[in-house]
Amino acid sequence: MKRTLKSRPEPALLLAFGAHPDDIEFGCGGVIAQETRAGRAAHFVICSRGEAASHGTPRKRVAEARKSAALLGATLEFVELDGDAHLEVRAAHAIKLAGVIRRVKPGVVLAPSLVGNQHPDHARLGRIVRDAARLARYGGVAELRRSPPHEIGQLYYYAVTPEAEPLDMTPVLIDISTPEVVAAWTSAMQAHASQASARNYVELQLARARLRGLRAGISHAMALFPNDPPVLDSLAALSRGARRF
Amino acid sequence: MKRTLKSRPEPALLLAFGAHPDDIEFGCGGVIAQETRAGRAAHFVICSRGEAASHGTPRKRVAEARKSAALLGATLEFVELDGDAHLEVRAAHAIKLAGVIRRVKPGVVLAPSLVGNQHPDHARLGRIVRDAARLARYGGVAELRRSPPHEIGQLYYYAVTPEAEPLDMTPVLIDISTPEVVAAWTSAMQAHASQASARNYVELQLARARLRGLRAGISHAMALFPNDPPVLDSLAALSRGARRF
Amino acid sequence: MKRTLKSRPEPALLLAFGAHPDDIEFGCGGVIAQETRAGRAAHFVICSRGEAASHGTPRKRVAEARKSAALLGATLEFVELDGDAHLEVRAAHAIKLAGVIRRVKPGVVLAPSLVGNQHPDHARLGRIVRDAARLARYGGVAELRRSPPHEIGQLYYYAVTPEAEPLDMTPVLIDISTPEVVAAWTSAMQAHASQASARNYVELQLARARLRGLRAGISHAMALFPNDPPVLDSLAALSRGARRF
Amino acid sequence: MKRTLKSRPEPALLLAFGAHPDDIEFGCGGVIAQETRAGRAAHFVICSRGEAASHGTPRKRVAEARKSAALLGATLEFVELDGDAHLEVRAAHAIKLAGVIRRVKPGVVLAPSLVGNQHPDHARLGRIVRDAARLARYGGVAELRRSPPHEIGQLYYYAVTPEAEPLDMTPVLIDISTPEVVAAWTSAMQAHASQASARNYVELQLARARLRGLRAGISHAMALFPNDPPVLDSLAALSRGARRF
Amino acid sequence: MKRTLKSRPEPALLLAFGAHPDDIEFGCGGVIAQETRAGRAAHFVICSRGEAASHGTPRKRVAEARKSAALLGATLEFVELDGDAHLEVRAAHAIKLAGVIRRVKPGVVLAPSLVGNQHPDHARLGRIVRDAARLARYGGVAELRRSPPHEIGQLYYYAVTPEAEPLDMTPVLIDISTPEVVAAWTSAMQAHASQASARNYVELQLARARLRGLRAGISHAMALFPNDPPVLDSLAALSRGARRF
Amino acid sequence: MKRTLKSRPEPALLLAFGAHPDDIEFGCGGVIAQETRAGRAAHFVICSRGEAASHGTPRKRVAEARKSAALLGATLEFVELDGDAHLEVRAAHAIKLAGVIRRVKPGVVLAPSLVGNQHPDHARLGRIVRDAARLARYGGVAELRRSPPHEIGQLYYYAVTPEAEPLDMTPVLIDISTPEVVAAWTSAMQAHASQASARNYVELQLARARLRGLRAGISHAMALFPNDPPVLDSLAALSRGARRF
Repeated sequence: MKRTLKSRPEPALLLAFGAHPDDIEFGCGGVIAQETRAGRAAHFVICSRGEAASHGTPRKRVAEARKSAALLGATLEFVELDGDAHLEVRAAHAIKLAGVIRRVKPGVVLAPSLVGNQHPDHARLGRIVRDAARLARYGGVAELRRSPPHEIGQLYYYAVTPEAEPLDMTPVLIDISTPEVVAAWTSAMQAHASQASARNYVELQLARARLRGLRAGISHAMALFPNDPPVLDSLAALSRGARRF
Repeated sequence: MKRTLKSRPEPALLLAFGAHPDDIEFGCGGVIAQETRAGRAAHFVICSRGEAASHGTPRKRVAEARKSAALLGATLEFVELDGDAHLEVRAAHAIKLAGVIRRVKPGVVLAPSLVGNQHPDHARLGRIVRDAARLARYGGVAELRRSPPHEIGQLYYYAVTPEAEPLDMTPVLIDISTPEVVAAWTSAMQAHASQASARNYVELQLARARLRGLRAGISHAMALFPNDPPVLDSLAALSRGARRF
Repeated sequence: MKRTLKSRPEPALLLAFGAHPDDIEFGCGGVIAQETRAGRAAHFVICSRGEAASHGTPRKRVAEARKSAALLGATLEFVELDGDAHLEVRAAHAIKLAGVIRRVKPGVVLAPSLVGNQHPDHARLGRIVRDAARLARYGGVAELRRSPPHEIGQLYYYAVTPEAEPLDMTPVLIDISTPEVVAAWTSAMQAHASQASARNYVELQLARARLRGLRAGISHAMALFPNDPPVLDSLAALSRGARRF
Repeated sequence: MKRTLKSRPEPALLLAFGAHPDDIEFGCGGVIAQETRAGRAAHFVICSRGEAASHGTPRKRVAEARKSAALLGATLEFVELDGDAHLEVRAAHAIKLAGVIRRVKPGVVLAPSLVGNQHPDHARLGRIVRDAARLARYGGVAELRRSPPHEIGQLYYYAVTPEAEPLDMTPVLIDISTPEVVAAWTSAMQAHASQASARNYVELQLARARLRGLRAGISHAMALFPNDPPVLDSLAALSRGARRF
Repeated sequence: MKRTLKSRPEPALLLAFGAHPDDIEFGCGGVIAQETRAGRAAHFVICSRGEAASHGTPRKRVAEARKSAALLGATLEFVELDGDAHLEVRAAHAIKLAGVIRRVKPGVVLAPSLVGNQHPDHARLGRIVRDAARLARYGGVAELRRSPPHEIGQLYYYAVTPEAEPLDMTPVLIDISTPEVVAAWTSAMQAHASQASARNYVELQLARARLRGLRAGISHAMALFPNDPPVLDSLAALSRGARRF
Repeated sequence: MKRTLKSRPEPALLLAFGAHPDDIEFGCGGVIAQETRAGRAAHFVICSRGEAASHGTPRKRVAEARKSAALLGATLEFVELDGDAHLEVRAAHAIKLAGVIRRVKPGVVLAPSLVGNQHPDHARLGRIVRDAARLARYGGVAELRRSPPHEIGQLYYYAVTPEAEPLDMTPVLIDISTPEVVAAWTSAMQAHASQASARNYVELQLARARLRGLRAGISHAMALFPNDPPVLDSLAALSRGARRF
């Protein structure tokens, strides 16, 4: 009765959703860099062109996103929903993103956290992706009948800002201490020049990763928040915890 | 600045603390069986002889514990604190158990959960072990100066009963679906004949592990609750989550 | 100033809402069986025909629901909202279900829990029903003016799966240990043959009820989660708590 | 496999513990009055003479407690532990109170809540009583061997002040709207004249019960917090919830 | 790098949103009275005319709201969204209210709390206002381009009823003990005669403020719940806490 | 009925308790610097000489503490309890510290947070201080009869490390962006040379304060966690919240 996952290529593709062109980079870019360096394919789905932001035109922001994804070794596509600052939680959106999941067939999915007190698009996209991951495996959804159901392995949330970190989930910390990983991530954030120049976003994220690293006794770390309890065959991979001070 | 853990033998020893002779088996025996089968050494420290229970003499219970540990492939020792149903949270106890940790040099430590609404000895031992794991790495504790400080990798809590499962920590689930593992664990629980015959303890624990297994789409699983966020180099080991229904 | 509830027939009707044809049975079927056996009328309102599921046609699922409700001694009607996997939280839906409540005049209402990490239709229906129960007693809602306001006694949530159990509400446990009750409930779940054959749903629910029963020192029990603190004239009915091990 | 509770007299005695002479009255006196009026016996165990308070001598406070208990129809005894403002959580205290429980054989036990941010004696006594209720049914506790184990039905917490109400438990509200009950409770509080004259304790408690009553659509109500989920044979007794505005 | 707030008039205007004509008065009217007495301007935005209530015509309720606002020293406008009992969380609503914020330029904004178990319009308006406060400062929202972005200082939630008080935020208590303030607030509540006569709303709110006052050792107090941690230059203003009994 | 606080000198003294010689500096040193610069007197009570740490002799650590306190403009005394790594929660300790509070007569008290997963002495000292602040105002505690009761204004918790930040309290952030304040704080931390040289404590704390500052749109900020809701006469001092990104 063991669940066999053989049909999935190893390591399975990582699929990250972002509400705006820079959310993935600021929220979990270091993890992406770490994973693609280890040979895992990563794909970004961006659900607006950031057209409501104070800085940067949509055209410029799309270009920044393409450059940034390339720096992280990820592919990228845009899937428009309601537009920046206009996103609503609609069943049709979840079905649309479920179709993306069926097409891309990821192992792990990343989405912005569900914490309400952040940019309203973030939490809403998180809820839509959570629903999409479920609908992707239901056989009878009429709009999706052309593509076979797909069951993802796990859904993790990332927090674009510290305020968005969920307090009711124990995170897992990914050690991104390799200098090349930090450098690639930093470059990817800086590629969003229209945003990075307006406020101290890059410094904020590096300080956040450095603080987590210091707590774990390493250089830098980023947190991901699992939607469901992780299942493992052994404690071997889980023998290190973040408690240094 | 990577934290090097080279001095630790691999896989590092698993050290489990129990307040009574049967707590470890009922609370996380399946995980012990799974780990020892995979070649990891396990050691039990039992802090009373169960002398306050309604059934079984201390002498009988010690014998049951020895038999059960052997069935799980673990070594065992008794370290008396205040006695069954008399345990208090004392600094001297934490220092004593920190001395055990320095001697045994575990990678992962297991302790009963901190949830208050269970046998009072359970939560108190959990708190004492948490403190002990910290004191084990402080160089200046006078009583411990003869043994060098030791830093454990991670502390996990197990829940002897469902009521003792912490609601504020995301558990990790260990897949114990191999029939031999379930069989070894069941035998180990039954070895505590004085307790198992009095109430439906064995059925309770198997139903609990089965229910978790069904939720994860596998046969049986047991939950452990990490004291600190797990730190990993990659998401590869964390690609499976428990969401099946 | 005592609130008089005399106009309500005793025992007042039980009204259960389900998002899909089998949700009520899997989530609280044992309680329904227990209550109808004690002479209380029960009525089911099903808000989709389960057309998005991997298994079973809508026609087949409607037939299964009718058979199952009959086995539990309940009447049944279908009230379509947005369709399976398409439900959204709309004010119009709450008003529609408030109309049902005004027509059926229940004492106790049952709805799926509000926990977000389950089938998206479940939590949304729970929120719609919570709002509906409130709108049912407001005199000025234009769409409802033809039927007199009705104030329910209490709203309880049921959890279709263990993941859907709310952690922030103390449940009440209904003792369903009578063998005939467990048998009727089991038959009702098995009547949903299209679903029960695909995954281990029936075993999951029985294990869940058995585990709760073992914790309470009885055979089987099911949990309901009160939306508001229960009000009683005396502690006499509340003299038994679930703590056995 | 039904748990038979036949050996218990009906309705079983109510046993309330208080850290100081007036805690029970201020925290749950209305419930006591309601229950004794309905024919249930109530017994108070007071664990200090209030000797650390700003007002009232121990002798005076003992007299006030006796008068107040009589007004509520309850019997009373003093069981000294460490003294007012000196209480510590000791295993010996839990064993001592377990002995009281074995002697008194209550169905329901009442104790101050576990919330830490109140008079330190309150939360500590709550923890001691919780442990005592468990030790009372363990057969092997040496100090208790002379009296047979006793299993209580349920443990409820009361909150001496609003700050002490636990936020993580759904309370049950007892309707104490009968004027004679409110009057008896008020008299009992006023009997603690040394305390009631110093601060607005009586007004505070009446305002609290009135506020709860208004929320439930009745005159006055008091909250109790169940240590474990209540177990019932039917929803019939639980058909009323507190949601009026 | 200090954030300069010089462009804001001092004390900056207080902007309160209400879903129905009486929500602001019942939920935080005492604070409004306190602030306007101290010379701060206050403005109310009411998002329905209360047309779904059991009592009072829309025309009557608008008149009551105007009278009540005048008693509190506040100005008032109506901004219709979906209508009473029909409110939904739509991006267009948040953008509309963001436009109001840009026009009114408040320092502090007040909105109903996000707790779901209350009148459905309340929590939804709270979420819409939270989003509106954010959108008000994004430069690129097309619908808002005609008015310059505005950054508010802080968002506080008020609770129309005790059930609506958030348990996961530490409130701040505003001391409204001045008799004239309590009198003005009471008059403002009574001005909503169509509602106040139907149920004990005024008594409920006064009892609530009195209970909070008693806990803080003063006459009356009202709680507000900050959406984000307050930032201060000194502890001087925060030297008084509510712990009296 | 206004609570008059006239007998207290303005601004009232700040009293900070630390379990070890460097806890106050690392946990809230920036706030101390900010307050003493504003003319408020500050006094430190250190409850051990740090004799269990891996680095630094007790003599050296006492000297470091004296130097550091001077840099922050605070006075200092040592009050021994059980010794470093040996602290237990005893009523006698709370009474001893209550005596200190009666002698020093502070307005605001600072203590380490109650979060259990940190150095065991920290959380225990926090609990002892919370109790001490209460006992300080009870007139009848025999050991304290020689000094008149004293009622503090507010108790705040500081977190020595990020792990120790309570998740269930909304913090207040003190803006410490003045360069001289950051400099004084940094010097005070560096004065604990025996500790600062062993691990990256100073970098950790500065990164923490910088991250909080960035979130609030200022340079640096530190969080304090109020034990009880703050009480204010007006919202004027609370018009700024931390939400910048």
